[in-house]
Amino acid sequence: MKGNLLYEGKAKQVFMVTEDPDALILSYKNDATAFNGEKQAVFQGKGRYNNLISSAIFTYLQTNGIASHFKQQLNDTEQLVEKTTIIPLEVVVRNIAAGSITRRLGIPEKTAFTSPLLELYYKDDQLGDPIINDEHARLLTDATGTNLATIKQMALQVNEKLQPFFQQVGLALVDFKLEFGRNAQGEIVLADEISPDTCRLWDLTTGEKMDKDVFREDLGDLIEVYDAILQRLEAVK
Amino acid sequence: MKGNLLYEGKAKQVFMVTEDPDALILSYKNDATAFNGEKQAVFQGKGRYNNLISSAIFTYLQTNGIASHFKQQLNDTEQLVEKTTIIPLEVVVRNIAAGSITRRLGIPEKTAFTSPLLELYYKDDQLGDPIINDEHARLLTDATGTNLATIKQMALQVNEKLQPFFQQVGLALVDFKLEFGRNAQGEIVLADEISPDTCRLWDLTTGEKMDKDVFREDLGDLIEVYDAILQRLEAVK
Ligand SMILES: Nc1ncnc2c1ncn2[C@@H]1O[C@H](COP(=O)(O)OP(=O)(O)O)[C@@H](O)[C@H]1O
Ligand SMILES: Nc1ncnc2c1ncn2[C@@H]1O[C@H](COP(=O)(O)OP(=O)(O)O)[C@@H](O)[C@H]1O
Ligand SMILES: [Mg+2]
Ligand SMILES: [Mg+2]
Repeated sequence: MKGNLLYEGKAKQVFMVTEDPDALILSYKNDATAFNGEKQAVFQGKGRYNNLISSAIFTYLQTNGIASHFKQQLNDTEQLVEKTTIIPLEVVVRNIAAGSITRRLGIPEKTAFTSPLLELYYKDDQLGDPIINDEHARLLTDATGTNLATIKQMALQVNEKLQPFFQQVGLALVDFKLEFGRNAQGEIVLADEISPDTCRLWDLTTGEKMDKDVFREDLGDLIEVYDAILQRLEAVK
Repeated sequence: MKGNLLYEGKAKQVFMVTEDPDALILSYKNDATAFNGEKQAVFQGKGRYNNLISSAIFTYLQTNGIASHFKQQLNDTEQLVEKTTIIPLEVVVRNIAAGSITRRLGIPEKTAFTSPLLELYYKDDQLGDPIINDEHARLLTDATGTNLATIKQMALQVNEKLQPFFQQVGLALVDFKLEFGRNAQGEIVLADEISPDTCRLWDLTTGEKMDKDVFREDLGDLIEVYDAILQRLEAVK
């Protein structure tokens, strides 16, 4: 049964589970935030789309050998997951240049990387999630060098699995952000969400942006776009 | 003989050498810049101090086995160096937290790192010298993974040599920035300068800042401080 609210983030509430201390319920909110909280809005239905899409993606990843916190979808906006201690890193994999990297390094949007580019950010809202290197990650978190290697390898595996997954529904996986946590057994597992809030997805035919950039860049109706993603994924189930 | 001006940076002019295509003359200027060129000033005598201090440091490093571009000091403001193709990286080694890392990662100033922290920045004035990781470095420069390992190892060796060098004159080596280039033989050598413009040096007794932070933070007379550094180094020659 749903227990107390453990914490609340920008996109989800996290609840305890009364009968299982090692489980959590993630409850997806309708809130959208961008640019480190500077831009905010609420979209009716967004929580449902992210919950359904993230559930579909984690289910697919698990059947493809990627260990994650995901247990099951509970209802429209909630899912049951393994409780972890989140390692405060945002692990970003980029296949094509878009967003912050275009501004930070002057790489033109749409530049394809010859091999996926991996970046670490320190998950700290107050500091604005600064980009860091491996030495910073070891200084700021309890991740060892071996842990970082595991995390990077898993992130690249997720990319290997998700690229064809999205390609079959006509989407280019431009980039995405992952979080990892340690479960009760001390294993590092993929955690958090994978959704159009945390991925950049471009229509393979039109080039249209079909993710949170629609909100960030005021490109149209966010809910229409998230609905289209879900419909495409359900069509190939 | 001094040939044409090859290029001019914020701190030095770089001249060709008529009789030797593999040599350059670095001519130290009196200009000081900080915060990516936002703060500027001219200090009479600064070029001389940096030339003399950098020459003393490179001489010491070479006698301690660190391959560099340095050939000889020519006069008060000029030195002869090996011509290199600079790898556009700023390699920063930090022993104690100060400057940008305190703001970027919220690490309090004066925090001592248990082992030296190494950072790479992409040397690009227009982009504001952004911090990068190893994957970015390989993408943005022609440095291979092996080259980066060499560069990092050399940077840590420089730190190993410079810490006692400064300690004997009562200074803590807080952090410093290095540049590396490829010489005509394709070898990676330490290049550019090592001076109070590119190091943070704190008096071991008083904690006083004795480097370019005096200019950045308006702490006093920059020239007095650079003169004190040179005098201390000359006293132990
Ligand atoms: N399996 C898990 N165990 C513990 N915490 C988790 C798990 N999955 C996600 N979280 C955390 O839930 C919190 C709420 O998510 P979210 O609203 O996206 O937060 P944020 O504002 O940090 O992006 C985040 O801190 C996230 O790291
Ligand atoms: N041995 C060398 N060969 C070629 N270029 C060098 C060498 N040593 C330093 N340089 C370059 O000289 C230029 C001028 O120095 P400086 O005025 O400090 O430039 P900046 O404004 O880029 O800091 C810099 O681009 C530096 O990388
Ligand atoms: Mg989140
Ligand atoms: Mg310089």
